[in-house]
Amino acid sequence: MTHEINIPEVLAEVQAVFARYEAALVGNDRATLDELFWNSPHTLRYGFSENHYGHADIAAFRASLPLQSPPRELLRTVITTYGRDFATANVEFRREGSRQTGRQSQTWMRTAEGWRVVAAHVSLLG
Amino acid sequence: MTHEINIPEVLAEVQAVFARYEAALVGNDRATLDELFWNSPHTLRYGFSENHYGHADIAAFRASLPLQSPPRELLRTVITTYGRDFATANVEFRREGSRQTGRQSQTWMRTAEGWRVVAAHVSLLG
Repeated sequence: MTHEINIPEVLAEVQAVFARYEAALVGNDRATLDELFWNSPHTLRYGFSENHYGHADIAAFRASLPLQSPPRELLRTVITTYGRDFATANVEFRREGSRQTGRQSQTWMRTAEGWRVVAAHVSLLG
Repeated sequence: MTHEINIPEVLAEVQAVFARYEAALVGNDRATLDELFWNSPHTLRYGFSENHYGHADIAAFRASLPLQSPPRELLRTVITTYGRDFATANVEFRREGSRQTGRQSQTWMRTAEGWRVVAAHVSLLG
């Protein structure tokens, strides 16, 4: 019942998919964001000012946004893998022109289609 | 590479440990909160107004609080299990006397000692 932490090749996989997600977010590439969220009614996303339940609701929300995210700087990133199929990615960030620190938390699962975000939470440091 | 979702007995386990966590939180039972967070430098907690890295820092922060949480009402709780050893618990809540909605996200892992929170994020809906 112990899951090896940060197996190098697993960590490298999650780092790569996380980088792909980040590029899609600031690149306003909605198709990739929709792809990388688990296509399930169980998927959940707490955003700055909204809570969405299920991939369909999350995708509809994204479709309503003219811009997914302004340019942002990642201040501190912690990606941790647990065994071969689960990971968390947590990042502190600052949006261009803002003085506030944001936090983005994601839980990732390996699926038959690849790594997917099963739950996410984004907020500003209060 | 598919992980069965919400296996009934696994879901029941996580629901039970989540209830134990919630009771400890509003019961100001710091020992139980410290126990239920994974005892690892990888454990991470983004709180309302603070970010802590590692079990020791999280425990030190808790030790500095006179009260872990005021009484609160859980508005919507979603617990999802992925296979037998991983789960997420997400809850919208309202603290007594507050009009704001809070969100608490936890990623849980089964360890040799039992289910533990490996990452958490708490915030107010902006």
